[in-house]
Amino acid sequence: MSRSAGCCQKTLHYVFDYETTKTLVIPNIGVGCIFRFTQLLVLLYVVGYVCVVQKAYQDTDSVISSVTTKVKGFAYTNTSDMDPRFWDGADYIIPPQGDHSFFVLTNMVVTPKQTQSRCPELPNPSTTCVDDCDCIEGRTDTRGNGIQTGLCVNYSQTVQTCEVLAWCPLEIDTQIPEPAMLAAAENFTVLIKNSVTFPKFNVHRRNILPHINSSYLKRCEFNRKTDPDCPIFRLKHILSEAGEDFQDMAVKGGVLGIIIDWSCDLDWWARKCVPKYSFRRLDNKHPVNNVAPGYNFRFAKYYKTPDGEETRTLIKAYGIRFDVIVFGTAGKFGIVPTIVNLGAALAFLSLLPAVSDWFMLTCLSKKHYYSQHKVTYLSEDTEAESISMATSYGTR
Amino acid sequence: MSRSAGCCQKTLHYVFDYETTKTLVIPNIGVGCIFRFTQLLVLLYVVGYVCVVQKAYQDTDSVISSVTTKVKGFAYTNTSDMDPRFWDGADYIIPPQGDHSFFVLTNMVVTPKQTQSRCPELPNPSTTCVDDCDCIEGRTDTRGNGIQTGLCVNYSQTVQTCEVLAWCPLEIDTQIPEPAMLAAAENFTVLIKNSVTFPKFNVHRRNILPHINSSYLKRCEFNRKTDPDCPIFRLKHILSEAGEDFQDMAVKGGVLGIIIDWSCDLDWWARKCVPKYSFRRLDNKHPVNNVAPGYNFRFAKYYKTPDGEETRTLIKAYGIRFDVIVFGTAGKFGIVPTIVNLGAALAFLSLLPAVSDWFMLTCLSKKHYYSQHKVTYLSEDTEAESISMATSYGTR
Amino acid sequence: MSRSAGCCQKTLHYVFDYETTKTLVIPNIGVGCIFRFTQLLVLLYVVGYVCVVQKAYQDTDSVISSVTTKVKGFAYTNTSDMDPRFWDGADYIIPPQGDHSFFVLTNMVVTPKQTQSRCPELPNPSTTCVDDCDCIEGRTDTRGNGIQTGLCVNYSQTVQTCEVLAWCPLEIDTQIPEPAMLAAAENFTVLIKNSVTFPKFNVHRRNILPHINSSYLKRCEFNRKTDPDCPIFRLKHILSEAGEDFQDMAVKGGVLGIIIDWSCDLDWWARKCVPKYSFRRLDNKHPVNNVAPGYNFRFAKYYKTPDGEETRTLIKAYGIRFDVIVFGTAGKFGIVPTIVNLGAALAFLSLLPAVSDWFMLTCLSKKHYYSQHKVTYLSEDTEAESISMATSYGTR
Repeated sequence: MSRSAGCCQKTLHYVFDYETTKTLVIPNIGVGCIFRFTQLLVLLYVVGYVCVVQKAYQDTDSVISSVTTKVKGFAYTNTSDMDPRFWDGADYIIPPQGDHSFFVLTNMVVTPKQTQSRCPELPNPSTTCVDDCDCIEGRTDTRGNGIQTGLCVNYSQTVQTCEVLAWCPLEIDTQIPEPAMLAAAENFTVLIKNSVTFPKFNVHRRNILPHINSSYLKRCEFNRKTDPDCPIFRLKHILSEAGEDFQDMAVKGGVLGIIIDWSCDLDWWARKCVPKYSFRRLDNKHPVNNVAPGYNFRFAKYYKTPDGEETRTLIKAYGIRFDVIVFGTAGKFGIVPTIVNLGAALAFLSLLPAVSDWFMLTCLSKKHYYSQHKVTYLSEDTEAESISMATSYGTR
Repeated sequence: MSRSAGCCQKTLHYVFDYETTKTLVIPNIGVGCIFRFTQLLVLLYVVGYVCVVQKAYQDTDSVISSVTTKVKGFAYTNTSDMDPRFWDGADYIIPPQGDHSFFVLTNMVVTPKQTQSRCPELPNPSTTCVDDCDCIEGRTDTRGNGIQTGLCVNYSQTVQTCEVLAWCPLEIDTQIPEPAMLAAAENFTVLIKNSVTFPKFNVHRRNILPHINSSYLKRCEFNRKTDPDCPIFRLKHILSEAGEDFQDMAVKGGVLGIIIDWSCDLDWWARKCVPKYSFRRLDNKHPVNNVAPGYNFRFAKYYKTPDGEETRTLIKAYGIRFDVIVFGTAGKFGIVPTIVNLGAALAFLSLLPAVSDWFMLTCLSKKHYYSQHKVTYLSEDTEAESISMATSYGTR
Repeated sequence: MSRSAGCCQKTLHYVFDYETTKTLVIPNIGVGCIFRFTQLLVLLYVVGYVCVVQKAYQDTDSVISSVTTKVKGFAYTNTSDMDPRFWDGADYIIPPQGDHSFFVLTNMVVTPKQTQSRCPELPNPSTTCVDDCDCIEGRTDTRGNGIQTGLCVNYSQTVQTCEVLAWCPLEIDTQIPEPAMLAAAENFTVLIKNSVTFPKFNVHRRNILPHINSSYLKRCEFNRKTDPDCPIFRLKHILSEAGEDFQDMAVKGGVLGIIIDWSCDLDWWARKCVPKYSFRRLDNKHPVNNVAPGYNFRFAKYYKTPDGEETRTLIKAYGIRFDVIVFGTAGKFGIVPTIVNLGAALAFLSLLPAVSDWFMLTCLSKKHYYSQHKVTYLSEDTEAESISMATSYGTR
């Protein structure tokens, strides 16, 4: 045999000889049971919790969503503040386009025929005055409504306030109509179309499910029990599901979340991917820890008088903003999360012998006997080694 | 030697003595090969799949995005329904502000000079009547257009319908102009500016890439092959990439997603972070499983006549809503995911000896011989142990 | 004893006998130290980095957010271009509704009394002409402003341009007012209400913290040092925190991000869940690598003259768009991530003996002595085995 061949064979042996641990079988049913029991626990955790409950073997992806909404309904108002008026969607949906957020006007304070001019401020401690000295020209008070001209004029027969340059007459929003002007809005319905995508899995879904046909969609109305898949919601129903009273909320307005949960299991053995609707009020209705409760905003309609002067109708619009909030996670079997979770469980399994050994070598009555066979104490003294070994096995 | 010193030394030994497993080297090339091969498989999985394909060593973060859009172009319409009219962006972009979603008007049904008044309903089975008894005052029919006054009046010379209080004259939207009025909108262009942030890595990017200069931006137009980085898109091109025909979609409207995918690898050895554009129709165009196909909404322009009466022009606007959908995940080397994935692979590696052992002790012909040397069976009988041991090694 | 009973007992033994590895204790303080030290390193990584720094034991969930904003303040403009004018929120907030994105008008180019008519193009190389032959009827130039009628008319006394059909007079937007018209907008304040949800943990929070009361909210103003929890921001302050100058940015507009970071630790021992505000300019202000710098859009107010003709006031609105960007991740103790991370660390711990063994069997001087006791080389020759074993233990 040549030298190189010998070397090669040696390396081959080094690589392909199989090195295994020597083991000792201990016929103690106690340790055995503990070992098997802990193994069972780890297995149960892996199968039961990780796989069934948490579905940790799945890759996940977040939803990407597009929403269109369309509100239908009309109302008729006949209050002392305003002329009798008929309202349809083009009037009460602001802005008119149905995005993931839409606003339904329910109440308002209208100040018509405002022009750029001068008028007395609304009376409050910082605007009332006795003579012109109390008013400084050009001063703007953040709580006021315009730029002071420096004059003190009559607001009413008893009160004098500083004159301001502003859109006059000023809006008086202290008295909100109650009940809400557009109380009939509770019977409006909204159609929500939601199209979602999970880009990682290239899956597209719509909230109008495949088994639904056009004729059903034309007459249905969402109801958790009878029509859970219908994408048409009555506003009153939405609010009552959220635990709110429509007439109550309509007065000062508010923000209401229409929450669509797309939690999808895309594995073929559990193809579940339907939206779940829930409803929740998003603004704070408790007046203590709050500022500007409810929801309102001001907008104006601009007109030109025949002689070219610009006037506007200022509207402080109270109403309910509906935010369609779409969220969700899709899961699909993925090799990496499976391996990671199995690996972690295996690591715990490989920890178990250490635990059982510790139990065996400390708690059992025969611990010395077991220790003697399991553990060999090597003496530090090289010369004496063979003897030590011999005795260790022979007589100990 | 004092007693405490002895105790201390004992503890020291207990802590710092190194306990290693006794091993047995088996010169069987079969088991060795199986062992090495499975090791290789695990290694390949770790290096190939986890590191290269899945990049599981990376920490990830989702994109935060801000979008501005600006549409350019004008059109001229000259149809029988309306006066000849010139359209620019301020007319056909509703709302005028370019957010992540913008709407291009392509078709419309205009109902001018509506006033709050009374007029006969549009004829349909539930609104036609013979005399006033068929119409109930105050009734609102969800399929109707107003509040019934209780009168039955002539709609045409042959048909009588209930009179309603509404914005009159009523809109007749059964006949949609075809081809679409603003068919020229297909040549409009849109500039999309997208600024993204990955907050975890404090990385900011724009879709106007650093190597692009102003003069190129002024004349370029997106094309997947020749100008993939240009942020200016022609509407017709967007629709054709989405597999839709502009003229077809323009009639009834629709929703189209402009999807910007920021999948970034932020590691220094692979600094790739450019947006990828794709286009997809988001609404359902199939009429079977659908309600209110296409995309439209109603809005009104309010005017005041010289004598103070409010009139409005109601517009049912059909058009294409473009939703700019930005998504993406950035990845960067992270110590925790690396450790977790390596650890899981190591756990599998530590499982391999068990597999090889099982193979060795069940499938090989010399299994008894190997078992004899690998496994020591401890007898339960403490007294007989030394003998058992002796025999176990000597004669078995 | 019957045969089946024996078989059953054998199986029982097979299942419940405990198989443990035989070990060898090596009283070498060097190897021991290395082993303990590496164990310590892994432990430190687990406790220090994974648990304390990265909180990898936590399940995470992304935030779902709803935002309402309300801008307050008014301004007075008195420039040569326009009549003196008072501005309030209804005038300068476009669109009026405070969503997660709101726009504050700061500058504008107003073109009043536009009508559908004919007028000469603005002069530029492609629109100037000498006679009618230079203008082609029906031609639309993307850089032009209307549809050419085919006539060449006087623009001024010296320049002739093609006549176009458009909204006339044409807008001249080359001269932007500087300083910005609504420079006073820097003193406007905005109230931001933000309501967030972490659906996985069913946790809801608001940016108006529980300890804040109404009277504080009425007078406070956000300041990073003195009032970090106040949700009312002065626009000037927002821009200065973002490193921008309001007056500078007001001229051409821009996009500014109000970034709210909800990074929540929901474990009971660290109940931290407060929003952190930061501000950053989102558009590109460098003119080199840019197109259409700043932020502007055009909108029109439509009027009807007494004789029924439609006119519009075109406004090119420059201003600052504020994008309220809410992001964040909540973490809460979760069993799966804990197990995964501990498992990975355990896997590394189980790798350590292999490392220590390799060190012991290659680097130490007594390596042969240790190897001799640790590793048993099994001979391939079955017959000679007992002898080999005997010698192996006896004399080697």
